[in-house]
Amino acid sequence: MRTTVGIIGGGPAGLLLARLLHRAGIDCAVLESRTREYVEQRQRAGMLEQGTVDALREAGAAGRLDTEGLVHHGIELRFAGERHRIDFPALTGGRTVTIYAQTEIVKDLVALQLADGPPLLFEAEALAVEKPESERPVVRFRHEGRERTLACDWVVGCDGSHGIARESFPTETSRTYAHDYPYSWLGILADVPPSCDELIYARGERGFALHSMRSASVSRLYLQVPNGTDPGDWPDERIWDELAARFAIDADWTLDRGPITAKSVTPMRSHVHEPMRHGRLLLAGDAAHIVPPTGAKGLNLAVSDVRVLARALTELHRTGSARLLDSYSDSCLARVWQATRFSYDMTRMLHAQPNGDAFDHRMQLARLRRISASRHAAAELAANYSGLPLAL
Amino acid sequence: MRTTVGIIGGGPAGLLLARLLHRAGIDCAVLESRTREYVEQRQRAGMLEQGTVDALREAGAAGRLDTEGLVHHGIELRFAGERHRIDFPALTGGRTVTIYAQTEIVKDLVALQLADGPPLLFEAEALAVEKPESERPVVRFRHEGRERTLACDWVVGCDGSHGIARESFPTETSRTYAHDYPYSWLGILADVPPSCDELIYARGERGFALHSMRSASVSRLYLQVPNGTDPGDWPDERIWDELAARFAIDADWTLDRGPITAKSVTPMRSHVHEPMRHGRLLLAGDAAHIVPPTGAKGLNLAVSDVRVLARALTELHRTGSARLLDSYSDSCLARVWQATRFSYDMTRMLHAQPNGDAFDHRMQLARLRRISASRHAAAELAANYSGLPLAL
Repeated sequence: MRTTVGIIGGGPAGLLLARLLHRAGIDCAVLESRTREYVEQRQRAGMLEQGTVDALREAGAAGRLDTEGLVHHGIELRFAGERHRIDFPALTGGRTVTIYAQTEIVKDLVALQLADGPPLLFEAEALAVEKPESERPVVRFRHEGRERTLACDWVVGCDGSHGIARESFPTETSRTYAHDYPYSWLGILADVPPSCDELIYARGERGFALHSMRSASVSRLYLQVPNGTDPGDWPDERIWDELAARFAIDADWTLDRGPITAKSVTPMRSHVHEPMRHGRLLLAGDAAHIVPPTGAKGLNLAVSDVRVLARALTELHRTGSARLLDSYSDSCLARVWQATRFSYDMTRMLHAQPNGDAFDHRMQLARLRRISASRHAAAELAANYSGLPLAL
Repeated sequence: MRTTVGIIGGGPAGLLLARLLHRAGIDCAVLESRTREYVEQRQRAGMLEQGTVDALREAGAAGRLDTEGLVHHGIELRFAGERHRIDFPALTGGRTVTIYAQTEIVKDLVALQLADGPPLLFEAEALAVEKPESERPVVRFRHEGRERTLACDWVVGCDGSHGIARESFPTETSRTYAHDYPYSWLGILADVPPSCDELIYARGERGFALHSMRSASVSRLYLQVPNGTDPGDWPDERIWDELAARFAIDADWTLDRGPITAKSVTPMRSHVHEPMRHGRLLLAGDAAHIVPPTGAKGLNLAVSDVRVLARALTELHRTGSARLLDSYSDSCLARVWQATRFSYDMTRMLHAQPNGDAFDHRMQLARLRRISASRHAAAELAANYSGLPLAL
């Protein structure tokens, strides 16, 4: 097989890139190691920045998003018996965010690509990227029981944090910056209308809890739990009881319960791989960086990488100029580090520290109170949460 | 001896409180364990918030400050070869800060008090506060070779972090929140005009450095050093070489050197004692809280405690209402925790982490770049640095 841009990974990053390149008239092909069913049901994020919505519209993939997405104008912070709303439009000059599950984005993009897009191979497991320093890198992959090759002008690794693309970067000139947090999230999906109109971030001595949602009838909730927690130790009733205790605020508010349809534990970590380009191999999304979900930045960062990369490849295609491609890594990393900083700060501000340092505890309250009291502090949170500009 | 308000400690907090009470017609007396010469030469802070300047004016103690103080309109951040100015008036609606050494404030207040103020006893070492829960607490102290007592209606501990006032708080209902940092500051005074018009906060891989000043002809400079550093290991030339290396930015800027007249090492720590009142014993300034000097908050917090306390005691004196006294601790602690948060963040953002975590390093750069890029982030720094309002 031969293409211009070989894309490893059929998650939202790879699929959106393929869509944007296809519309720009650039040949590409997507290799996805899993089945279509698996990819379309993988539970991930669901909070889209304005720029992410714009990118999906630009790709012609926002039809269902525009009718089914829930536009949110803020979030609520709960702590020490107080509740404080962050009003995004008022603090950012009109910006909003949209709730629409990553699984739905993937379904929309898969359907478009299979209908009229470039090749999308499921169960095509990338094995290695060869000769990324050369003019003609090759992706070796396994498909339908045999090993094949995809010869490319450019290879883009959108294959997530456990993918193989990053392995072709020389260790002498690249490195991963990592921070692991001493807690995980136990996340559930439940068939019950959300007990709130907007997301609630609750900090308390029992630990952090987040009330999110997937739609008007499906709730998504999270509990801070110790690393290594077995979801089997958390029967449904225990989960609901703990959620109710962590969100408890006053007699007027109750948490509605319903059947839990999914349950999983995710560790919190921050990883950034630098640089994001080696020769003709580029990384985008989780393949290059992981953030803890507290700031709702993972999917949005992947989409912003892809927007920058699609522009760069389009400029090369149209004008022959590699200027944007040459600045791709630095340009993305500036934004990635800002999102990493924001996600770290949100995570540290809201989670109970397992070591139980009373000083840290008081500092968390001071931060939350400052955000409640200062328009500048609140505006900083709103600007970062609703999404920084593409070019920093 | 008998007085209405017995003040332990003749630093800026105790002396300013005495001055404000004296002007309000309230009897008081100050016990200072050291000699006048010692107190007037103790090198401490030198950056005054607008509210601190206002309080000294209100106390009639700003004559020399108003002629000799240097009004500053901003600070400079240096990092990764970049320099960024924080413009206080532009970001805060006109606020400035003033450089005037704590030693000069102490000299001014001592002179006023000895001229026409309430009793100020030097070499009067407080030994204990007795019966703080009663209507008539007593300070036992040693003066001129014998033990004496000061009977009071109220006792105020302005005796610093190693003072005895805090020891009379019951351990069951009070506690100290503490955080120690893995580095200290080596500070020098030098007889050389400052090489800058405004303070420079420099972050680099060699460690943090601060270029401050005491006057147009005296520079005050600091180097981050490991805890336990012996100033004897730092001959003058080594200090200047290291300072020059840490401030190095471009060919246009050089650090002027001169004779070093003082040299000392100070560990960085954050301590907050809660509550700040027990019965008729109140704490103000370092006796209740210590911040690392990176945010220039220590002296300013002491002054704001004293302003709140003088108002509260004046209200009691004039109207018989203890309302402000009853809210003294909570009112001060809200501000103390905000200053503690700000000082912690400035400290963590600017110092090299001895454990050398590359992730933290990148996060520091991301924070500094965000402050350089975002008006909200810069305005938050400016608001906190130039001083939050007295009532939060």
